[in-house]
Amino acid sequence: MQDVDIKAQIRTVPDFPKPGVLFRDITTLLKRADGFHAVVEKLGAAYCGQPIDKVAAIESRGFIVGAALAYKLNVGFVPIRKHGKLPAENFGHDYELEYGADRLEVHCDAIQPGERVLLVDDLIATGGTAEAALRLIGIAGGSVAGCAFIVDLPDLGGRERLARLGYPVHALCQFAGD
Amino acid sequence: MQDVDIKAQIRTVPDFPKPGVLFRDITTLLKRADGFHAVVEKLGAAYCGQPIDKVAAIESRGFIVGAALAYKLNVGFVPIRKHGKLPAENFGHDYELEYGADRLEVHCDAIQPGERVLLVDDLIATGGTAEAALRLIGIAGGSVAGCAFIVDLPDLGGRERLARLGYPVHALCQFAGD
Repeated sequence: MQDVDIKAQIRTVPDFPKPGVLFRDITTLLKRADGFHAVVEKLGAAYCGQPIDKVAAIESRGFIVGAALAYKLNVGFVPIRKHGKLPAENFGHDYELEYGADRLEVHCDAIQPGERVLLVDDLIATGGTAEAALRLIGIAGGSVAGCAFIVDLPDLGGRERLARLGYPVHALCQFAGD
Repeated sequence: MQDVDIKAQIRTVPDFPKPGVLFRDITTLLKRADGFHAVVEKLGAAYCGQPIDKVAAIESRGFIVGAALAYKLNVGFVPIRKHGKLPAENFGHDYELEYGADRLEVHCDAIQPGERVLLVDDLIATGGTAEAALRLIGIAGGSVAGCAFIVDLPDLGGRERLARLGYPVHALCQFAGD
């Protein structure tokens, strides 16, 4: 495994997508061959040998991390998408955001009953979207094998929220205190 | 390499996203460990040993194929996104669609001058979006190493359009004549 400081390669963009938000931008990490490779290797090492049948990832940045990890773990890939994007029959789950509501969907035939599914996204903040995706995996018949992220923002409490629900979380780095 | 009939694993959904369209749905291929693995192995074999510095992929389904292929080829990954999604300074390219217009963007620092970039998406139809992405790679300073897709719809002429512009196209399967 190459020795890349993952956190140091993530760019912080102030005031995106709105004033006052510090956006943690993983594109500066992923554009580097060694950075992208390190992300997949480190997440792969965390789950290698564990019983995982599929990786499910959240649109759109989650697809980048989740697809490479699914290939690394040699399992199938399931996209969890925003409303109206999936072409076939799907399950949906509505959830609350800070302002307003949103909906995630997964194809009804994406997960077989009892399959162990690893949820992947680029970042966990409040955990609202991740919780919705995890509930959707359950609705689809899967059991959650874990939740993997590149970035954890612990001040926003998402990791604790998922832990209280019984979902184990793994993240490669944290940004806290600002 | 596993012996998977890639085309046979792709589902056709009629009348999505609008009446009269036959949507080629790759999720039935990707959810299978052997299907997803075969896609990445076959695309990887097509470009293995070629001088490629980065994979650039088009939001959102392109991210799935492109990220796994970037990992396979051990190169960096660059997202090409719809307007307003990228947080830092970016180049944009407006292009015409059948009805209306759209815009793709890439970060200004995503590609170094002269880097050889492989463009990846799930499907090529008319080639309008792919052409816009290829022009954007040029605007960003890259040279195009190739264009890779899972599905080619030859009746819509995208492959020929890109070939006329000098871009070599590789696709894993075709759907024609319906």
